[in-house]
Amino acid sequence: MAEQTKGGTAQRTAITPTRDEDYAQWYQAVVRDADVAEMSHVRGCMVIKPWGYGIWEQLQRTLDREIKKAGAVNAYFPLFIPLSYLEREAAHVEGFAKEMAVVTHHRLEARDGKLVPTGELAEPLIVRPTSETIIGESMADWVQSYRDLPLLLNQWANVVRWELRPRVLLRTTEFLWQEGHTAHATHDDAMEYTLRILHEVYTKVVEEDLAVAVIPGEKTPGERFPGAENTYCIEAMMQDGRALQAGTSHYLGQNFAKAFGISFQSAEGGTEHAFTTSWGVSTRLIGALVMTHADDNGLRVPPRVAPHQVVIVPMLRKDGGEEVLAYARRVADEVRAQSFAGGRPVEVLVDDTLYEARDKKWKWVKRGVPVLLELGPKDMANDGVSYLRRDRGPTEYVRGGRGEFVAGVGALLDEIQTGYLEQARAFQRARTRRDITTFEAFQAFFAEAGNEAAASEQPGFVVAKWCGDAACEEKARDLGVTIRCLPFEQSGTESACVIDGRPATTDAVFARAY
Amino acid sequence: MAEQTKGGTAQRTAITPTRDEDYAQWYQAVVRDADVAEMSHVRGCMVIKPWGYGIWEQLQRTLDREIKKAGAVNAYFPLFIPLSYLEREAAHVEGFAKEMAVVTHHRLEARDGKLVPTGELAEPLIVRPTSETIIGESMADWVQSYRDLPLLLNQWANVVRWELRPRVLLRTTEFLWQEGHTAHATHDDAMEYTLRILHEVYTKVVEEDLAVAVIPGEKTPGERFPGAENTYCIEAMMQDGRALQAGTSHYLGQNFAKAFGISFQSAEGGTEHAFTTSWGVSTRLIGALVMTHADDNGLRVPPRVAPHQVVIVPMLRKDGGEEVLAYARRVADEVRAQSFAGGRPVEVLVDDTLYEARDKKWKWVKRGVPVLLELGPKDMANDGVSYLRRDRGPTEYVRGGRGEFVAGVGALLDEIQTGYLEQARAFQRARTRRDITTFEAFQAFFAEAGNEAAASEQPGFVVAKWCGDAACEEKARDLGVTIRCLPFEQSGTESACVIDGRPATTDAVFARAY
Repeated sequence: MAEQTKGGTAQRTAITPTRDEDYAQWYQAVVRDADVAEMSHVRGCMVIKPWGYGIWEQLQRTLDREIKKAGAVNAYFPLFIPLSYLEREAAHVEGFAKEMAVVTHHRLEARDGKLVPTGELAEPLIVRPTSETIIGESMADWVQSYRDLPLLLNQWANVVRWELRPRVLLRTTEFLWQEGHTAHATHDDAMEYTLRILHEVYTKVVEEDLAVAVIPGEKTPGERFPGAENTYCIEAMMQDGRALQAGTSHYLGQNFAKAFGISFQSAEGGTEHAFTTSWGVSTRLIGALVMTHADDNGLRVPPRVAPHQVVIVPMLRKDGGEEVLAYARRVADEVRAQSFAGGRPVEVLVDDTLYEARDKKWKWVKRGVPVLLELGPKDMANDGVSYLRRDRGPTEYVRGGRGEFVAGVGALLDEIQTGYLEQARAFQRARTRRDITTFEAFQAFFAEAGNEAAASEQPGFVVAKWCGDAACEEKARDLGVTIRCLPFEQSGTESACVIDGRPATTDAVFARAY
Repeated sequence: MAEQTKGGTAQRTAITPTRDEDYAQWYQAVVRDADVAEMSHVRGCMVIKPWGYGIWEQLQRTLDREIKKAGAVNAYFPLFIPLSYLEREAAHVEGFAKEMAVVTHHRLEARDGKLVPTGELAEPLIVRPTSETIIGESMADWVQSYRDLPLLLNQWANVVRWELRPRVLLRTTEFLWQEGHTAHATHDDAMEYTLRILHEVYTKVVEEDLAVAVIPGEKTPGERFPGAENTYCIEAMMQDGRALQAGTSHYLGQNFAKAFGISFQSAEGGTEHAFTTSWGVSTRLIGALVMTHADDNGLRVPPRVAPHQVVIVPMLRKDGGEEVLAYARRVADEVRAQSFAGGRPVEVLVDDTLYEARDKKWKWVKRGVPVLLELGPKDMANDGVSYLRRDRGPTEYVRGGRGEFVAGVGALLDEIQTGYLEQARAFQRARTRRDITTFEAFQAFFAEAGNEAAASEQPGFVVAKWCGDAACEEKARDLGVTIRCLPFEQSGTESACVIDGRPATTDAVFARAY
């Protein structure tokens, strides 16, 4: 650790390796050392640890509130999907990942001290990779009349997509998410809702709460969700310059409604198929948070998604430990009476575990709690406080009076929150090239650094013209680069397609991606 | 419906059949007609509909708050459990239901237009029926020192136990629950926590929020969770006199710690096995709510677990509809500014869907919203309101001034809440016999009415002495009766075992059960 010298060896940072030494290893080390998550002994599946799950709970709460504001209600649908449902939605199946967990038996029997699967199912069941089919089946029952529309459903659930090359939080066999599924009477209403979720829920929460800067836009036809007529997304830039898709919202037209018989009697008395949408964000967002805000000393959690905004480590010596602890608890109570983020009470934890104060400090630095107080006998004597702002690193202590700190803690947290988003935006801006107009320059940019190069030397995003031809998209893909989205914010200019030089008006975001 | 006459046929109640006509069918009709849940097309699995899920969300919120008050934190563990884990915990396997969903393949391939499972797994995975084993595996990693104890974990999750005879909400292949898993340094600490959860979380929330009266006690050795040293439970009485186990808390001693290697270095430097607990409640509680508080007109939801405490149906005629709607919205806003249950804001829904007001009224009566306002032009002209209290049935309208209603709505909701719990307690008291002391009387009581008899004529609970002999328990089981628990509240008297007449001091609760 930065200023720590033990047994003659000086460590530079709390996380080894650093981002620039080995980005992939750094990511795994942060996730592990910040107690966010870990891969389990079950292949491809992760354990979300209490600190990581606490972040997910904060995010869930805000997402849930915004989803409800948008009029959707929560429900719960079966984990298992009959094989025949997937066969029915043929288009869905062709394009969809076929790596799925298949349940074939419903019984275990003990034979010679071993357990053996028996009770073979007549029809295998798939553990849901997503729930369009099973929810479509219910929607077909529930929707009868135009009076039943729009039907706006959301589900918080686990889903399973068998991953052959898992990576914690970003690509795991099982993950947690919310999936919204809605049915509407008209194209316009469904399309408007698809975009409303993208803008008013996903963009808003991911930027305001997670402090991750995103580019909202539309996917190209080649990158659409199978069965969707349009897929919209938000794309974020990680610290190695790669893109990470942080959320998607699909306009499904009448495709699923036709496959699953979601039809309704219109006000005029005819029978019509509904227009449906689906949209989701997942625990992958926690991976995005790590790759956006962690540094070489661990995670940095924006206050709005931190399980505790403030942690107090009492410096307990042999004498007077009780008094210092009482002082810490008093400060905690005073801070709890404060609010931030426009009215949320500040969550405070006094870490009174039996570990050494120094170990506790580094634990909370690595976990990235926004404000970390260390209170000892001197602070108590001065009626003062001593604290670290995680946005300023693990060594820059601020000292001040207790009353002043308490009165200002809400504003301090808001400042840290805003600062994180500004940093993320500045980083994205700095690593986005808008001046690349030829394929040669494009190739050179993405060839600049090999995969082994430091994170800070990896390429970022290129915003350039695309003629709309799938062949050009394919040519980029040969370089390991995809069109992340056609951003809603278009320059409106005409220029040459960066791949084949033909005249083009559409701006596209090109990048390597997770 | 009670006062409705249509086409010459008068229907008595909104739910058909009534409780006394066919209790099992009545239950299914309430669950369906109140939009709580329904069995899906996937065998044994249910869909929890928005109104039912809304009740679960309320319950979840309160349980989660109380669980956190008890010091536990949430985390998330894999859905899949390797077969070998279940084999390792042999005792666990023997006693545990062997009907489990087994994943044997991880891929689907299209062949001749069909999808076929391929990619057979070297080791089959079980979809978790409960997570002692998989969480034990993590605990073994996380616990190293006495400083890491107690480790208090909770998980909100879906679990799967293959049900051959499913019944919606009460016994389904998949259900939702929370499962707590904790590790402690001493027997005393673990035992105290086991009981703390039962009393301060389960008994409190089930009685105070769900308004279901319960008897807390200990299970007999024959009814314990496999691998537990003690199982504690809360038992509730349904309207047909049967018992329903509403929650359990297990003291596991060092059994699981030894099987999964959960050991720690003590303060003295030795290595010891931890003492563990596990505890859970599930969506089954919604079934308990229905069977406790529903009547022949549908569900009755206690205010504290109602998604909306107040629903307003505006009586929209052809003329003046806009004004009535505006009046309804104004009343809604005023009610939303009120609080109940010691400070919770009142949730209000204005049902402005396009259905007829009469249909909407019956929808909300069947769903059991605590207070249902019907506002028409007359109410508006009088600056008044007209409403139904669901605890007084679907026909007894109360009329009053708007201001008076708004000012009193919080107290009204509290009164309804208290009333439901009192009713449940009175019902349980009235159907519990404490004067049965001989096996002949015991047999006669439980033989009183056949399964086909009216719910109101079914036997209830018998509180009587039990000598502690498993053979006596077995003899009761031959009558279809089990010892639900040995209640914590013991009379302290000595008398004869109700089964074999031997001297006995322990009071036991005997009943038929779900």
